[in-house]
Amino acid sequence: MRHDGRLANQLRPIKVQRYFTTAAPGSVLISAGKTTLLCTASIDTAVPPWKAHLPPDQLTGWLTAEYCMLPGSTAPRKRREREKVDGRSTEIQRLIGRSLRAALDFKALGPRTITIDCDVLEADGGTRTLAITGGFIALADALATIAGDVDLSRVVKHSIAAVSVGVSNEVPVLDLDYVEDSAAEVDMNVVMTGGGLFIEVQGTAEGTPFSQDFLDSQLALAKEGIAQLTRIQRDSLGENWPMDKNSSN
Amino acid sequence: MRHDGRLANQLRPIKVQRYFTTAAPGSVLISAGKTTLLCTASIDTAVPPWKAHLPPDQLTGWLTAEYCMLPGSTAPRKRREREKVDGRSTEIQRLIGRSLRAALDFKALGPRTITIDCDVLEADGGTRTLAITGGFIALADALATIAGDVDLSRVVKHSIAAVSVGVSNEVPVLDLDYVEDSAAEVDMNVVMTGGGLFIEVQGTAEGTPFSQDFLDSQLALAKEGIAQLTRIQRDSLGENWPMDKNSSN
Amino acid sequence: MRHDGRLANQLRPIKVQRYFTTAAPGSVLISAGKTTLLCTASIDTAVPPWKAHLPPDQLTGWLTAEYCMLPGSTAPRKRREREKVDGRSTEIQRLIGRSLRAALDFKALGPRTITIDCDVLEADGGTRTLAITGGFIALADALATIAGDVDLSRVVKHSIAAVSVGVSNEVPVLDLDYVEDSAAEVDMNVVMTGGGLFIEVQGTAEGTPFSQDFLDSQLALAKEGIAQLTRIQRDSLGENWPMDKNSSN
Amino acid sequence: MRHDGRLANQLRPIKVQRYFTTAAPGSVLISAGKTTLLCTASIDTAVPPWKAHLPPDQLTGWLTAEYCMLPGSTAPRKRREREKVDGRSTEIQRLIGRSLRAALDFKALGPRTITIDCDVLEADGGTRTLAITGGFIALADALATIAGDVDLSRVVKHSIAAVSVGVSNEVPVLDLDYVEDSAAEVDMNVVMTGGGLFIEVQGTAEGTPFSQDFLDSQLALAKEGIAQLTRIQRDSLGENWPMDKNSSN
Amino acid sequence: MRHDGRLANQLRPIKVQRYFTTAAPGSVLISAGKTTLLCTASIDTAVPPWKAHLPPDQLTGWLTAEYCMLPGSTAPRKRREREKVDGRSTEIQRLIGRSLRAALDFKALGPRTITIDCDVLEADGGTRTLAITGGFIALADALATIAGDVDLSRVVKHSIAAVSVGVSNEVPVLDLDYVEDSAAEVDMNVVMTGGGLFIEVQGTAEGTPFSQDFLDSQLALAKEGIAQLTRIQRDSLGENWPMDKNSSN
Amino acid sequence: MRHDGRLANQLRPIKVQRYFTTAAPGSVLISAGKTTLLCTASIDTAVPPWKAHLPPDQLTGWLTAEYCMLPGSTAPRKRREREKVDGRSTEIQRLIGRSLRAALDFKALGPRTITIDCDVLEADGGTRTLAITGGFIALADALATIAGDVDLSRVVKHSIAAVSVGVSNEVPVLDLDYVEDSAAEVDMNVVMTGGGLFIEVQGTAEGTPFSQDFLDSQLALAKEGIAQLTRIQRDSLGENWPMDKNSSN
Repeated sequence: MRHDGRLANQLRPIKVQRYFTTAAPGSVLISAGKTTLLCTASIDTAVPPWKAHLPPDQLTGWLTAEYCMLPGSTAPRKRREREKVDGRSTEIQRLIGRSLRAALDFKALGPRTITIDCDVLEADGGTRTLAITGGFIALADALATIAGDVDLSRVVKHSIAAVSVGVSNEVPVLDLDYVEDSAAEVDMNVVMTGGGLFIEVQGTAEGTPFSQDFLDSQLALAKEGIAQLTRIQRDSLGENWPMDKNSSN
Repeated sequence: MRHDGRLANQLRPIKVQRYFTTAAPGSVLISAGKTTLLCTASIDTAVPPWKAHLPPDQLTGWLTAEYCMLPGSTAPRKRREREKVDGRSTEIQRLIGRSLRAALDFKALGPRTITIDCDVLEADGGTRTLAITGGFIALADALATIAGDVDLSRVVKHSIAAVSVGVSNEVPVLDLDYVEDSAAEVDMNVVMTGGGLFIEVQGTAEGTPFSQDFLDSQLALAKEGIAQLTRIQRDSLGENWPMDKNSSN
Repeated sequence: MRHDGRLANQLRPIKVQRYFTTAAPGSVLISAGKTTLLCTASIDTAVPPWKAHLPPDQLTGWLTAEYCMLPGSTAPRKRREREKVDGRSTEIQRLIGRSLRAALDFKALGPRTITIDCDVLEADGGTRTLAITGGFIALADALATIAGDVDLSRVVKHSIAAVSVGVSNEVPVLDLDYVEDSAAEVDMNVVMTGGGLFIEVQGTAEGTPFSQDFLDSQLALAKEGIAQLTRIQRDSLGENWPMDKNSSN
Repeated sequence: MRHDGRLANQLRPIKVQRYFTTAAPGSVLISAGKTTLLCTASIDTAVPPWKAHLPPDQLTGWLTAEYCMLPGSTAPRKRREREKVDGRSTEIQRLIGRSLRAALDFKALGPRTITIDCDVLEADGGTRTLAITGGFIALADALATIAGDVDLSRVVKHSIAAVSVGVSNEVPVLDLDYVEDSAAEVDMNVVMTGGGLFIEVQGTAEGTPFSQDFLDSQLALAKEGIAQLTRIQRDSLGENWPMDKNSSN
Repeated sequence: MRHDGRLANQLRPIKVQRYFTTAAPGSVLISAGKTTLLCTASIDTAVPPWKAHLPPDQLTGWLTAEYCMLPGSTAPRKRREREKVDGRSTEIQRLIGRSLRAALDFKALGPRTITIDCDVLEADGGTRTLAITGGFIALADALATIAGDVDLSRVVKHSIAAVSVGVSNEVPVLDLDYVEDSAAEVDMNVVMTGGGLFIEVQGTAEGTPFSQDFLDSQLALAKEGIAQLTRIQRDSLGENWPMDKNSSN
Repeated sequence: MRHDGRLANQLRPIKVQRYFTTAAPGSVLISAGKTTLLCTASIDTAVPPWKAHLPPDQLTGWLTAEYCMLPGSTAPRKRREREKVDGRSTEIQRLIGRSLRAALDFKALGPRTITIDCDVLEADGGTRTLAITGGFIALADALATIAGDVDLSRVVKHSIAAVSVGVSNEVPVLDLDYVEDSAAEVDMNVVMTGGGLFIEVQGTAEGTPFSQDFLDSQLALAKEGIAQLTRIQRDSLGENWPMDKNSSN
């Protein structure tokens, strides 16, 4: 039994509120238990500077992500990242960017830069994976606004979701909250497509090295979680669910 | 008639959601029309470093504020302030800090540092004044959590609210949104106590210098707005409204 | 009686030395008592980068200001702002820039960027208002050097001066020095045109909120000071006084 | 057949030169083909600042790592990281630090801070894994210098090595060089103990999501590489090989 | 004949105005032709942080210097050094600090930190040497204010002055202005004691390498200049000339 | 007798290893005793930004240098220069750049930017002079790679070497190591051409001012050292020694 009564393979309650703000075309308030993020997706018709000198036929699009914890998202208050980005945020936003880029065909997207901003309003464990799961929803809503200009069935190759797994009281459990995460011996974040393939596997032994068997059992648990999250994404997005436009997925 | 149908002396609809997150003792989601902020108030028992060397009897408290616009709060997306704070944010957060410090008796507060974080989730004009109005609510909720340790009737000297006024189509109007603000000839931000006294008056001629008569009419309009905002603060806070504990206000 | 023997409505002695240096077209050493600034005005024929992409007919000019206290201007020595600008300087230089921009018609100025540098050589209160008053003189001298290329009677819309007012020993007084400023309950900075209209009013209750009557009496005092400062500017500038070229002021 | 003639499970030639410099107690020049790093290990008897306030019995040691590519290590020259650390370096040095910390029992180490500096002299793929493999050798040499003060058989829990695996021409291959890495669909870095357990698994789909079977075959290949690297570490270190002092490994 | 009519061994007219400001104990406005600097000297009773942990008998004093060109000191305007110090300023202020430290016996000075701030109000060549010459005068005035606490005859070991020499139209000349400096093949800055010994010699071939004979003739010219500057320093300082208190110089 | 048994005019053993890495066209590992540097030379066909707007016939080349001490190069470990460059490094790399620029005719080089990176692997005194001596070798190797595109006999005007001299136990000695340097009263760095002319002379009295005679004896010693270093450069470079291509040297 987990400290909050969940089963080992049970996610925290997920709430999704689309169009939470209106300035960005994708704006999703997503929470898993007390972990809450605002994920916005913006589309800019400028290609990133480091692609600007390419010949027109290579002027494909790009997606970049930024991750930031608001100071009031933790107790005690977290110092605001204003003069330099801390290493953890850098590592996390690179993971979010890589993961969501795997969803897209940038040639089909054309010369556009998408930015996914993931701001943590409250942090109770699992912020980086929730950022990916919620970021995909914001991305889908933003892409829907340019459906007249691009072929979404080609732009979106996969749906993407992410979840953490770990060991609590010697039992592998899904979607750790802060209490569980702090005590876990192994911290594993798994990013997968809705179709059940891996995009990124990051497993770190916090204290005790782990075996292949252990890794396999963790990944099996992650797959269960990803399947649930994919259903939640699909239900939330409704007609904006991009996979329905893409028969190859 | 204003472009959104409001009367000259009419505020935008104000919505207040207290305890929006739970890590910080004060956490208020406040919106005026489409302008939306998350204001959190944190209390730290350490005095700020620049007071740390004072003798114990001068170890009074302090309040500081930070203001930041999230990148997705505007269209086009605003570059994240991560490597340096922009001048506008600096100016605004200094105003918020000065204004909310006017509410407090720091000797009665004792050696504590309160931080008010005002993060703009969506910006449609009037973010700095809404930050003050919402920040006061978050401050009151945070102070309520230390009511057993300090005498709140002495700590809180005034309630504080703020509003903007300006001229649209040659008529002075209250609480300008972005469209009105962009076209306004004069930009005035007024911070007042619930008791009707001024804490800060900032009037800037954007194009045409203004006269004393004009200033007077603007301030009269601001007073009307502050009275309404004070009622909203009182109604939102309910039993946490600190003025009821303070017979001198 | 004030601590230095001045009357309530008396400015400190103002000294103005034009062409103090020769590299910049405007270079004014200005002092009010012991507060001393060097204000230089430079003119660059490049428009600022954020205007560079506008169509030619919108390529109007711009004015920007920088404010800095030299380390030796205070006792104890002030740490040099070299790796980051402090918040107070940012706030002050934004005020100086806004105030002096109100003097100019940027369409008539054409595609030029004027920079006003206000470096405080000695600080004894009132540096920000003296920066505006002295900065206008430097601006006028710099503009005189391009009189052959622009129509100065159209470029300069107003003369600009600024002064502080406050309360000392419960009496409203003009042009506070550091001793008075440190003890003042209200700090008000007023920027006006030579014609007696307001450009910026900034009043801050340092401790005690203030009433409309109080505000009015302060502004009346400020108007007296501005009138004196405008005469000093006019007398100093002599034939470079731009208002004589502009019958509409 | 790989472009350089290696078999799929063949490492590049590894050269290790210990005591390459003498200022740091551990100093290892390590190369894998043309990838060359200087790994130095320094020991400081000060605990890190964020541990300094702990009670004496919690004043355990710490290990931190820094990773940097010298400008001349690539063609074209890489801009020197001097004003800000780039995101990739941050991510890599966090991986190196986590991996080598897994080797140590910080309670047995006592209040010491070890810093592993990994400077890339030439980069031809696989710099982060070679930094870990070489960093462990430098760490062992540095620890040998304090063998009189600590019980090395308790301080060192595991030997640590790392290797990359990926797919080239649809065949899983070990230890990719830059040419192979640039074309690889999946990039996987694996950190293991000499005893064959995982410390960190990081697999990223650069283009094509991957399956569980694929993951398994990659990890099998990695294990072969780690076994070879562990032998090389042991042979290089000779009597400084810390595992011989630790019967539990 | 030089372009401004000076003889080869003739300095530009030197003007010295002591006590130009009053916040710092030493404050000297010094000009050589159109090159003008404000040199202030401040004394802090705190030893620098990197000496703070020394045993009391090693808690000697220190002197540090900062050099900065104001933006309006050149045409076109020089970008303000506010976010990073440029390399040239760093190099110059290190030279000023080394040179003036040679004047002092820090053991006799005791635990005090002196800061010399050299701000260039107008730059027409020779700013670094004038900073040293003027900085020494400010230093002497500042030291005079602590004459009751230290033995100045022991604190000040030497008077220090500096001058530039170079070649103009193939003739060695003293004290180059900007026009001469820009065309000079060799740039040499010489710092000497009033007693005629060298503190620092910096000779740089800008284009053509130079011989020993050439070096000798340049140094002879520099000695003439230093002798004149020393007399000017002595005459300016009057009874604050520290050498009169020190029979060993 | 010197502490390491050298004669007063004897260099430390110099070792040169060319092509130490292969990414940069010039890559030299050079050591003098225990002082070891990696000097790489890269050639970029872009002119530096501040020359980019010049007319084509003024689009000459440029050379810039960077100097950095690796953290493990000293004991105790030196903090990595990552967020700001320290003043000493700035000063040194400006010296290296000036010195090596004196070797080249930038008009003959054409629009190319050469960067010399000097990274100190181990520091035992004399790093800046060894950087110049080794940097010249790397420069020569890099230039050899473009011999088909430029006329090297015109590009390279001089060979350049550098050495330090100082006083140890009251005797002038050549090429001080760290122990000697720390105790030296005068620190002098001399940069010369292979033809025996001066490029840069920097002499600093660390404690005792020095006389002309002293300067002369130091420079004589430096000339001996430069002659030896020039022979070493020539022998190392073999057919890449650029002076053999240039009959005018």
